[in-house]
Amino acid sequence: MSRQTSRSSALFETLLYGADYNPEQWPASLWPEDMRLMKLAGLNMVSINIFSWALLEPALDQYDFSQLDRVMDLLAEHGIAADLGTATAAPPPWMSRQYPDILPVTREGLRFSHGSRQHFCPNSKNYRREAAELVRQLALRYRKHPALRLWHVNNEYGCHVPACYCDNCAVAFRSWLQQRYGSLEALNEAWGAPFWGQCYSHWEEILPPRLTPAQPSPAHCLDYQRFMSSSLLECFLNEARILREITPQVPVTTNLMAGFKPLDYFAWAPHLDVIAFDNYPAPTTPPSEVAFTHDLMRSLKNGQPHLVMEQAPGPVNWRPQNPQRRPGELRLQSLQAVARGADGVLYFQWRQSRAGAEKFHSAIVSHDGSERARIFREVEEIGAELKQLAPFVAGSRIAAQAALLMDWENWWAVEYQPGPSDRLRYWDLLLAYHQPLYASNIPVAVVSPESNWQGYRLLVAPLLYLLRPGLAQKLETFVAEGGILLTTFFSGIVDVNDRVVTGGYPAELRRLLGLRVAEFDPWTETMSNTLVIEEGPLQGHYACSLWGEVLELEGAQALGHFASDYYAGGPALTVHHLGQGRAYYLATQPEEAFRQRLLSQLCQEAGLTPLLEAPSGVEVSRRLTSDGRSLYFLLNHNQQEVTLSLPSGHFRQLPQGETRSGQVHLGPRSVLVLEAES
Amino acid sequence: MSRQTSRSSALFETLLYGADYNPEQWPASLWPEDMRLMKLAGLNMVSINIFSWALLEPALDQYDFSQLDRVMDLLAEHGIAADLGTATAAPPPWMSRQYPDILPVTREGLRFSHGSRQHFCPNSKNYRREAAELVRQLALRYRKHPALRLWHVNNEYGCHVPACYCDNCAVAFRSWLQQRYGSLEALNEAWGAPFWGQCYSHWEEILPPRLTPAQPSPAHCLDYQRFMSSSLLECFLNEARILREITPQVPVTTNLMAGFKPLDYFAWAPHLDVIAFDNYPAPTTPPSEVAFTHDLMRSLKNGQPHLVMEQAPGPVNWRPQNPQRRPGELRLQSLQAVARGADGVLYFQWRQSRAGAEKFHSAIVSHDGSERARIFREVEEIGAELKQLAPFVAGSRIAAQAALLMDWENWWAVEYQPGPSDRLRYWDLLLAYHQPLYASNIPVAVVSPESNWQGYRLLVAPLLYLLRPGLAQKLETFVAEGGILLTTFFSGIVDVNDRVVTGGYPAELRRLLGLRVAEFDPWTETMSNTLVIEEGPLQGHYACSLWGEVLELEGAQALGHFASDYYAGGPALTVHHLGQGRAYYLATQPEEAFRQRLLSQLCQEAGLTPLLEAPSGVEVSRRLTSDGRSLYFLLNHNQQEVTLSLPSGHFRQLPQGETRSGQVHLGPRSVLVLEAES
Amino acid sequence: MSRQTSRSSALFETLLYGADYNPEQWPASLWPEDMRLMKLAGLNMVSINIFSWALLEPALDQYDFSQLDRVMDLLAEHGIAADLGTATAAPPPWMSRQYPDILPVTREGLRFSHGSRQHFCPNSKNYRREAAELVRQLALRYRKHPALRLWHVNNEYGCHVPACYCDNCAVAFRSWLQQRYGSLEALNEAWGAPFWGQCYSHWEEILPPRLTPAQPSPAHCLDYQRFMSSSLLECFLNEARILREITPQVPVTTNLMAGFKPLDYFAWAPHLDVIAFDNYPAPTTPPSEVAFTHDLMRSLKNGQPHLVMEQAPGPVNWRPQNPQRRPGELRLQSLQAVARGADGVLYFQWRQSRAGAEKFHSAIVSHDGSERARIFREVEEIGAELKQLAPFVAGSRIAAQAALLMDWENWWAVEYQPGPSDRLRYWDLLLAYHQPLYASNIPVAVVSPESNWQGYRLLVAPLLYLLRPGLAQKLETFVAEGGILLTTFFSGIVDVNDRVVTGGYPAELRRLLGLRVAEFDPWTETMSNTLVIEEGPLQGHYACSLWGEVLELEGAQALGHFASDYYAGGPALTVHHLGQGRAYYLATQPEEAFRQRLLSQLCQEAGLTPLLEAPSGVEVSRRLTSDGRSLYFLLNHNQQEVTLSLPSGHFRQLPQGETRSGQVHLGPRSVLVLEAES
Repeated sequence: MSRQTSRSSALFETLLYGADYNPEQWPASLWPEDMRLMKLAGLNMVSINIFSWALLEPALDQYDFSQLDRVMDLLAEHGIAADLGTATAAPPPWMSRQYPDILPVTREGLRFSHGSRQHFCPNSKNYRREAAELVRQLALRYRKHPALRLWHVNNEYGCHVPACYCDNCAVAFRSWLQQRYGSLEALNEAWGAPFWGQCYSHWEEILPPRLTPAQPSPAHCLDYQRFMSSSLLECFLNEARILREITPQVPVTTNLMAGFKPLDYFAWAPHLDVIAFDNYPAPTTPPSEVAFTHDLMRSLKNGQPHLVMEQAPGPVNWRPQNPQRRPGELRLQSLQAVARGADGVLYFQWRQSRAGAEKFHSAIVSHDGSERARIFREVEEIGAELKQLAPFVAGSRIAAQAALLMDWENWWAVEYQPGPSDRLRYWDLLLAYHQPLYASNIPVAVVSPESNWQGYRLLVAPLLYLLRPGLAQKLETFVAEGGILLTTFFSGIVDVNDRVVTGGYPAELRRLLGLRVAEFDPWTETMSNTLVIEEGPLQGHYACSLWGEVLELEGAQALGHFASDYYAGGPALTVHHLGQGRAYYLATQPEEAFRQRLLSQLCQEAGLTPLLEAPSGVEVSRRLTSDGRSLYFLLNHNQQEVTLSLPSGHFRQLPQGETRSGQVHLGPRSVLVLEAES
Repeated sequence: MSRQTSRSSALFETLLYGADYNPEQWPASLWPEDMRLMKLAGLNMVSINIFSWALLEPALDQYDFSQLDRVMDLLAEHGIAADLGTATAAPPPWMSRQYPDILPVTREGLRFSHGSRQHFCPNSKNYRREAAELVRQLALRYRKHPALRLWHVNNEYGCHVPACYCDNCAVAFRSWLQQRYGSLEALNEAWGAPFWGQCYSHWEEILPPRLTPAQPSPAHCLDYQRFMSSSLLECFLNEARILREITPQVPVTTNLMAGFKPLDYFAWAPHLDVIAFDNYPAPTTPPSEVAFTHDLMRSLKNGQPHLVMEQAPGPVNWRPQNPQRRPGELRLQSLQAVARGADGVLYFQWRQSRAGAEKFHSAIVSHDGSERARIFREVEEIGAELKQLAPFVAGSRIAAQAALLMDWENWWAVEYQPGPSDRLRYWDLLLAYHQPLYASNIPVAVVSPESNWQGYRLLVAPLLYLLRPGLAQKLETFVAEGGILLTTFFSGIVDVNDRVVTGGYPAELRRLLGLRVAEFDPWTETMSNTLVIEEGPLQGHYACSLWGEVLELEGAQALGHFASDYYAGGPALTVHHLGQGRAYYLATQPEEAFRQRLLSQLCQEAGLTPLLEAPSGVEVSRRLTSDGRSLYFLLNHNQQEVTLSLPSGHFRQLPQGETRSGQVHLGPRSVLVLEAES
Repeated sequence: MSRQTSRSSALFETLLYGADYNPEQWPASLWPEDMRLMKLAGLNMVSINIFSWALLEPALDQYDFSQLDRVMDLLAEHGIAADLGTATAAPPPWMSRQYPDILPVTREGLRFSHGSRQHFCPNSKNYRREAAELVRQLALRYRKHPALRLWHVNNEYGCHVPACYCDNCAVAFRSWLQQRYGSLEALNEAWGAPFWGQCYSHWEEILPPRLTPAQPSPAHCLDYQRFMSSSLLECFLNEARILREITPQVPVTTNLMAGFKPLDYFAWAPHLDVIAFDNYPAPTTPPSEVAFTHDLMRSLKNGQPHLVMEQAPGPVNWRPQNPQRRPGELRLQSLQAVARGADGVLYFQWRQSRAGAEKFHSAIVSHDGSERARIFREVEEIGAELKQLAPFVAGSRIAAQAALLMDWENWWAVEYQPGPSDRLRYWDLLLAYHQPLYASNIPVAVVSPESNWQGYRLLVAPLLYLLRPGLAQKLETFVAEGGILLTTFFSGIVDVNDRVVTGGYPAELRRLLGLRVAEFDPWTETMSNTLVIEEGPLQGHYACSLWGEVLELEGAQALGHFASDYYAGGPALTVHHLGQGRAYYLATQPEEAFRQRLLSQLCQEAGLTPLLEAPSGVEVSRRLTSDGRSLYFLLNHNQQEVTLSLPSGHFRQLPQGETRSGQVHLGPRSVLVLEAES
């Protein structure tokens, strides 16, 4: 069942602003001071109880909710909502002593120990039963508590243990495979088992892809990634089902991790009531990449506002070096989230821990314990601003114009090693094609092969290595009905079981693209070529890297060609007219300048125009309200002031309401929110 | 028993041309098309059944040969010979479930899983028995089959698991040691057991060199390398004995891996009827190194023609990036093999897999399945050429003029770490001294300490760290009888158990070389010196690297000296006249230009002349037929055309037969085969 | 019980000169030759029996001392003292077969094998019992032997296995924790157990910090480091107690390893009768760092003369490359040891092994076996020189003027990862502040938080991250009474359990330093700043790296400020006047030139003057005899001759006694010893 339409879009009616709150690390005498400071900082929601299992259940089936009762009551008294954790992400030490099988095992066969977190095997029946029982107790106790606003299941699934290889998992994997394939014959066929003679005669012979002398089967590995994503989702559902049964009115979520390869978030999303994710860009991550993660997270539920469940108010502690954020950076990051569709921003964490592995992770309240630290003051200012913006913004949505196709299964398959090239990075290629749209201020939705693409005129689908059943046909229909499609090299190679579709690449895409790939040529770092466009708006010579191909045209038209090497003169960029649309194909990875020009042209062809013309480094996003207002967010990521010209129309600066027109100035790292009638 | 003289030199009477053929990965309906394409490509032999154990024996003692019967029959019908694999390189999954002890174990104690290949412990009795039984079934079934032409035992022994450290191996190692040493006293003495107090009191205390806090004993490790090379050879013999019993007329081989350190191929060679190896040079490997591997493989059986059992028709899939081969490269590599003595070239593989870890490894028939791919066309052209050349070439032999000494046991011992320098790479030093001979077009044999060196006037023996019993005396005799010997620094250091021979380096070689090494000085990367030759044809200053020594002359004469450091003025190159010959000693590693000049001079002294004067980058090799014809192979490795002058004499270009004389032009990457009366 | 005052300062009455002697590796017939050569080289002590357990006890409870008897007698006959090893560092193979639990286990759970050395778990009761029994036998047998002069317990504790994670250790760790904390409540509080919910309900749940999915608790790890240092010390005491009971008159030591992080040598030192350490600087280690290790080792027992128990006479074998020492280097290193307070220099080893992992480690007697090698001759010359110097030097002491604070527990805590920066290296920061004092020829003592600092006017205490109870008060008293203190950034952060002291950094040091650290900013490699001093003797601009801070002054005065970034103009160097002294604080890591100037100024303020004005690269050290003589050691580490001017006064060159005054010349790498009346 998809739950994505079962809730109103303005799930929370305001902009959430909050933090992870771990009062169990502090004496209760400090909690009233926490409340005072939270109100001062403008918080309206906190995530609690994330790692409290050992406190709630200090011994098997002995529960103690006294501390949590007190915390929930305090929050309710102060009008702060609880994002209530289920506390199952870190089993208590007594549990792994009692049930050693809950501890996960590495690929090499080494069993983890307790003492940190996430030391649970997702397929341990003991773990699942104990987690379910705790969740039932929690839900029954707080079902009617006024502070309860959101359920936070577990924490960052898969972060440290994306896969377990224990005997529990072996058993569960076999069941999963039996469901998927029905028979060993089908499995052997799907996995290409005769290769290296690894045909299975009994189900019990099948193991997780453990340590092997040579590479394990790609199809085996791919299925194990599917199985593990599914196993962890089952852990989520194990808890969510109970929560929904007992508190059907309370939304349920967990904190995702943006571009996290091990979990297929498109498969997870229908089971979450709201998408929440942890936003930890590195200091060196460009704003465009952060924008992409917002676009992805927001798109998981078709544009429904999402939440930033965690972000660091200052430095984290787990990078090699962790400098402070410079003044203004935090506001820019927080407003970028709202600009790109988030209805809430929460920090990790409220009060900086004095002990434990994360004690040097920043928090709103620093180790000094007072409100005078710069971080606190910045958080307080942002809180005040969001509070004023909330009535205008909450519940409004992004209207994406272009779509970018992403598929976790493709990601898993295309990066299997050894492959043609270890330089192929699916995430980087998605970024490479999102970036020009971002730079042009074209709103983008990230869609999956199973999404509904109707309404988009432009679809960019790089590196379509693995084609799920029906995808090629769906793409053909899209183009035939007038869509503009761009795809790239190394597409149309394998089926859903990572088996090459023989008969000529790009297999099912040949008819759509009007070409055949006779050879693909993965380049080393020292190899390159030049893409030559002889005429037209793209005319020029462009450096290209990573990959080349020898194409044979079967209806497509060459727009550009390679300048050198044995395929000099061969097509490098093609277009194929099909029905009322066009399908473009890039047989190499051209430099950014070319990708920017190409995407601009494709946008033109698709009739898409930028939200606003803005100088380089200025991000523009737009949220539309249900009553027809357009909210423009102008974010200046430059360290210098810039000037931009507003189009004609009526603009009011939010939240104060001053009228703005003509040229506006944006200070370094500053943000302007403008309302226009759309 | 040495089998090297029991067969005729022209084992196959033609040039073999073929591929690995894995029809079990494809529907039987495709096999007739395979036959058609094989004939088109000119194939006359295919390797089959390499990884088919699970198909042949889907459950213990249940055999099913129906598919293989069909394939063998098809091959016979089409006149294609079978290199029939014994299929023992990848046990079926059911076997490791039934006999967990067949799975090998890493040095750290981690047990491998099935699911890829080579997951067998060479000392597992269960593995040996099951493999033997399968081989017996195979041999009995196909003993009289007309397609059977060659037995292919297992596959690439040791490639992924060069050593196993399990309890099976511990037991077998003890037996091997008992045979070698007779008593624990002898073993403790040989291993220098009092060092760090690791004296053994009972045989059961002896283990494989597993994970230890500090370095394990070098002698222990050296014996374990001997034992593992021998254990894998026993696996080979376990099968070969059965094959020879049942099909005494069919030659038996396995595919070696050229410069593969873990296996002492000189010890293996007498047990193979023909040397076959897998030729996978990296795109950056210089042709001279490929030439060296051919010289080595051919020399394993004293010049008897060898086979290239596998080479990639295009890119492999297991390097970090795998670009296509450029046009012409494949022909050059294939004819280089023949030029240097091979009587056959087979590719891996026939038809590109659609599934499994190697699905992006190139094949003759690409994923598109047709004959129009460039790879297929190149293979087809080479096939046609080899077919025409075969009557002239097959069975002819290389007449080596100089010899290069190589010893696997020395390799194992000298690279034990920690040693004086981790920059000592035996293989690289062999290359450093093969290269000048290659560049001069002097045919080289690679000889072992046990080989018969009679007939060579020049012997180059770099880095003779470990001296087997009798080797020093053999070298003395060689020189005394008129030979020219060149050896280098760090020679004459240890005995066969890696124990230093005390009394002054180079120990047993002191009398031969007429010098004493007072100190050796392994240089860091930032250290260097200059070799100065004051007079004579070698006069000059030459950069040297890697190593320096302080020599004291005891009869030798200094030809060159070090220019700097605390041994400035000390000898760096010496010669010692002994009997009718001379022994040269290089106490450092001089730059290539010097090695080239030195070797040229030594060739002159030994009366050796280049086969042909050729421009740089042109490789010349010569095969001699039993009826006195000389076949010259001229291979232009340059990307430019070159011109060379033929000496006087009658030359006919093969296979067409045109007369050639005077200047001939060689296009980029092209090959010319000339016949001359010798 | 502290033993440090129970012995006279001149423990050995002469300068010891010797080597590790392993006669068990050689036939007994060679031993008389060893004696002859030892006398020739001037040796007066050898370390024996270090790795002989398997020879002494070839089977459980069967002892054979015949070889050792012979060696001891030979030594006595030749007037060479024995540093008698207890032989427990490498259990015999039979022992781990009989008691598998003696083998240690890695953090990942992999059990080590015998076959090298140090394969013992420090908490194995079987190991402890067997070691104790061997030691008892040894002590009883040789208690009255005239050669016995010193006990050498085990060898390089912790070198290869600084920590074991086995079940023995888990049990012992729990006992250790019970002693430390008394209750689980106290432990949970100390470890901050509610973080990630790792609260312990039973002692049995507590494990060593084994493999965990995320980072283990820092306090858990810190306690494990304490426990392991203590466990290994218990191994030492397990033997030392027996030795002291049976031979109360014979001093007991073990060979430490200088800057060895895993063992808290300040905690070990009271239990050793003399500090002995292994001095293996890399060829690239600057002399200043070697000087620091001598200062540290000498300071462990408050300036009592220490011993170099091992140093390599030539190259070692265990670096990637091991070039020879250049002529003169060995003398310089040996005399540096004496110059900085050592009363003995021993080499590893006497005779170069012919087998085993260290056979290419240099020795006094090289593989050639004779006295003619350069190493032997250099050792012989040094021996003669030390013999002549001994009457003047032995027992004299260094009078340190400045103190440098070092704390192993701080080292362990501050380098826990992930932390604010992986670029924080405590050892390097100690060096950074020792170096300027070394360069100024100011004698330095290294003190611990528990040392008596009276008598020092200057105390440098970089990176005081972890403050033990009472340390802040002790520093305040030091300053109030007139001391000059310098400390740095990231000080005053955590308590003894690595819990941050809240309320504002630097916590307990705020009153002393008169400031608050509002933010600390760990820089990446590409970040930097400039320290600006506007006026005074330090005036200038200095590059700084690694770290910056935002300070708020609370009584301190800013002497320098940052030039750029968001804290431009903020204080970077401060001073706080407290009582009669001053406390300086550096909020960044300035370049060496600044540290040199700053320390020079602080020395001036503290009334400290260099021992002698000397050119760059000349190290000057001074030993004071009990009868009032000053012995100056001038060591020219330059490769060029230098000239220096002696101050007025009477100087005699030792050992010959020539009068020296005015200008003296020091050749490259040469040493001059001068006696002056003080």
